[in-house]
Amino acid sequence: MSSNRDIDALIDMMAKLPGLGPRSARRAVLHLIRKRALLMAPLADMMQTVAANARECLNCGNIGTGDICDICASSARGNGILCVVEDVADLWAMERSGVFKGRYHVLGGTLSALDSIGPDELRIPRLLDRVQTESVTEVILALNATVDGQTTAHYIADQLEGRVALSSLAQGVPIGGELDYLDDGTITAALNARKPMA
Amino acid sequence: MSSNRDIDALIDMMAKLPGLGPRSARRAVLHLIRKRALLMAPLADMMQTVAANARECLNCGNIGTGDICDICASSARGNGILCVVEDVADLWAMERSGVFKGRYHVLGGTLSALDSIGPDELRIPRLLDRVQTESVTEVILALNATVDGQTTAHYIADQLEGRVALSSLAQGVPIGGELDYLDDGTITAALNARKPMA
Ligand SMILES: [Zn+2]
Ligand SMILES: [Zn+2]
Repeated sequence: MSSNRDIDALIDMMAKLPGLGPRSARRAVLHLIRKRALLMAPLADMMQTVAANARECLNCGNIGTGDICDICASSARGNGILCVVEDVADLWAMERSGVFKGRYHVLGGTLSALDSIGPDELRIPRLLDRVQTESVTEVILALNATVDGQTTAHYIADQLEGRVALSSLAQGVPIGGELDYLDDGTITAALNARKPMA
Repeated sequence: MSSNRDIDALIDMMAKLPGLGPRSARRAVLHLIRKRALLMAPLADMMQTVAANARECLNCGNIGTGDICDICASSARGNGILCVVEDVADLWAMERSGVFKGRYHVLGGTLSALDSIGPDELRIPRLLDRVQTESVTEVILALNATVDGQTTAHYIADQLEGRVALSSLAQGVPIGGELDYLDDGTITAALNARKPMA
């Protein structure tokens, strides 16, 4: 109810973002209108660019603006180590820690009997392919320390046993914790102290 | 640190919105990318439209997408009653209550000796003009119940005394409270019980 149809439509769309309700959407839109030249116009342009170009990497499932993401495209990242994560938010969290120099594989979720999510609903077949075709020597299973995350890690470890070195993030990941909520130091410690899968 | 330059730029810009930090900006951008056809592209388009067209109404200071806002342009709203508010957010709050049928005048702040804001820094001269040129019969001073808000209300009342009926929002506005934080029912009650200025 700003008295203007376009502004109301903008507030309604902003209110659909996670963490924003109608009130914070109104505040955000008013702020944007006040900074329309310096913030709103560039934000709208970049949002349009990303909306037009963002897609999942055909190789690893990361989100980028081309068919193959920047990490898969970088030969410097092809060190034979793959880090398996549930989700793009987890990949971003790993990248913020800055300590992992290899490539990723984004599963797109976890196995879940309850939700009928089996290996074929995730990017698990593609992971098994990549291990064979990309001279992978180590797979780090960086899944969340939840029941479903650990079930998924064990399933993948069973499939890959004897074919590559397997490790999982070790100390620092709290029970029930999710990677995306951890600080960079904790992720760094957990990665450096990774332990071979039993 | 999404591993993609455009996505990182988008996250940085979103993190500048009030109420969003880096973490909630990342969540919002990931949500937008996942809903890029249904939410992100229309949001970017509407943001571009508003960024290109939003401006302050030359008459009242409300924000709209033309030189004269929809409220000033509507003859149905020209009932001779002007509601004076500090801020566009306050105008939006009044409109949400749906009870006021006249036009507005947005001051753009309050008088403040501390910040050297005098009448000419606000839209006060324009208000005095409008009272003369738009057959105004009543001015409702709907300023925040803060010291600066009430000082400003008394200053305006002094200028207009004897020329129009003057009233202020009465019961329901808590001491030190700001209009933009009130629920619609409280605003409705305060408006209906408005009292003549002493
Ligand atoms: Zn990739
Ligand atoms: Zn207007």
